[in-house]
Amino acid sequence: MAGPATVLAISGGVGGAKLALGLARELEPDALAVLVNTADDFCHLGLQICPDIDTLLYTLSGRSNRSQGWGLEGESWQVMAALENLEGETWFRLGDRDLATHLWRTGRLATGDSLSTATRALASRMGVDVAVLPMSDDTVSTWVHSDEGDLSFQRYFVQRGCEPKVNGFSFRGIEHAAPSPEVLQLLDSGRVAAVVICPSNPFVSVDPILQLPGLWQMIAALQVPVVAVSPIIAGQAVKGPAAKMLAELGLSVDAEAVIRHYNTHYPGLVDTFVIDEGDATLAAAISELGVSVAVTDTMMRDISDKRRLARFVLSRAGH
Amino acid sequence: MAGPATVLAISGGVGGAKLALGLARELEPDALAVLVNTADDFCHLGLQICPDIDTLLYTLSGRSNRSQGWGLEGESWQVMAALENLEGETWFRLGDRDLATHLWRTGRLATGDSLSTATRALASRMGVDVAVLPMSDDTVSTWVHSDEGDLSFQRYFVQRGCEPKVNGFSFRGIEHAAPSPEVLQLLDSGRVAAVVICPSNPFVSVDPILQLPGLWQMIAALQVPVVAVSPIIAGQAVKGPAAKMLAELGLSVDAEAVIRHYNTHYPGLVDTFVIDEGDATLAAAISELGVSVAVTDTMMRDISDKRRLARFVLSRAGH
Repeated sequence: MAGPATVLAISGGVGGAKLALGLARELEPDALAVLVNTADDFCHLGLQICPDIDTLLYTLSGRSNRSQGWGLEGESWQVMAALENLEGETWFRLGDRDLATHLWRTGRLATGDSLSTATRALASRMGVDVAVLPMSDDTVSTWVHSDEGDLSFQRYFVQRGCEPKVNGFSFRGIEHAAPSPEVLQLLDSGRVAAVVICPSNPFVSVDPILQLPGLWQMIAALQVPVVAVSPIIAGQAVKGPAAKMLAELGLSVDAEAVIRHYNTHYPGLVDTFVIDEGDATLAAAISELGVSVAVTDTMMRDISDKRRLARFVLSRAGH
Repeated sequence: MAGPATVLAISGGVGGAKLALGLARELEPDALAVLVNTADDFCHLGLQICPDIDTLLYTLSGRSNRSQGWGLEGESWQVMAALENLEGETWFRLGDRDLATHLWRTGRLATGDSLSTATRALASRMGVDVAVLPMSDDTVSTWVHSDEGDLSFQRYFVQRGCEPKVNGFSFRGIEHAAPSPEVLQLLDSGRVAAVVICPSNPFVSVDPILQLPGLWQMIAALQVPVVAVSPIIAGQAVKGPAAKMLAELGLSVDAEAVIRHYNTHYPGLVDTFVIDEGDATLAAAISELGVSVAVTDTMMRDISDKRRLARFVLSRAGH
């Protein structure tokens, strides 16, 4: 085992990044690695855009716009205004500072860097000392099957504002995608002491990661505590379409449906499921699924909430 | 002959765009077409950048930054500042409004539009009613052979500030490139009544256009007046490296060397060569080359200069 014991956090965008920030404040930099969804990534106007990686980097470096929930604090919109004047595609709002990130990354990828290598260099330039690991260097693209047909993720999520009713998802390219070399190296290092599945969307953030060929089985084989945090609190998603998706898929809109989903697709993977105090009545039913239940206030309003939830999760992971 | 008699102006960037603007003010919109160099085009940070086309569009739409000689008036630099913070590639200065142009174009090309089609749509959005025709929809790239080795054009021109000593040029891809469909259509229409070779750099702006397979021969075969304007005034280029290139290639640094270059490579093409009053002593030697010489004040300081030179050139083209 080279290096210290490490917590591996599995994360999508906003909700996951909040807990990742709490974990980053509670752990030494080399004791945390964040494994990030890249199936939302897309090429737009020539630029390679990685929304979840950027949300992590912006959040961990203190650059994120907290009131807006995405993008950068103090952002300006000169390019978008000019693009609007040209009657260009402006449905995906690209702030000026955010654009610099996409240009930087696209330039690096064009020179032959892998997404992992480019992300590591970008994190370093932003002063992020936690390892932010793209799930894969290969292209995986989430497609949303809906009552309006098949939509690429950003078309569904941003352009259509999650309005179409979903009936399923697929991750194009996943069957030929490999976990990124750094992820495989970490899993093989003997350093991973616990795994945290952040309160991210189960269907479009966590699933693409865990469904990479062999990945969830490798994690299960580590035989370390795996703690998942429910993204559903009192029947609602804090942010994003998770609750709406549960309803449209005909599932109950509560934390129990989330752990049932994980248990069905990744049997035996999750040891402990963290739910909100408001959902304490679900504890008995969840226990019957063979999963330990831990109840706490899971709403992360400010940094002290994030740290408190991180400490709670770490304690349940035996850390 | 469908449509009115048309003047075809052959142009690179800044110097050519000045005369093109003068011509645009003197002629009806459908009586002028500008054939623009695309061999300076390059892909940078994922974006398809066409410096000469953009200079034309910005100049003809009144958007150009006149004091700077490139880019847009009232430009802002938010993205560049952020890219600099990321220690990104900032040697090619991309203003925010200019970036919108590149994003717009790159998005269009990604959907399968040709450069010609994208340029026509962009011109229309900018209110440019003159036809701005990319020389080719195929990729042609100017390489500069120098004492520092082979450099791509923008590396030489922008990043190295034209510092390396040149010993030649090549236009990669030109042997397989075709003039754009709109250019071929115009040449075939019977509408072209005169051709003006603008005061652009002979080596890196005019040559790539005229050396497209078959193009200069097609122009010569039109049997219409061809008037070229010298980019060299009193041994100096108004802007850009033309004078420096002449010297480094071992040629005399004057207007005569320019017409000798055209006469050597495109024998019989140029009927009339317009030189500056300050170069009147060269008239006799140029006449001996079998080319008519026309002498006038060719310096274009303001719009009235541009219109005056345009009128002068048109009169020499029998227009």
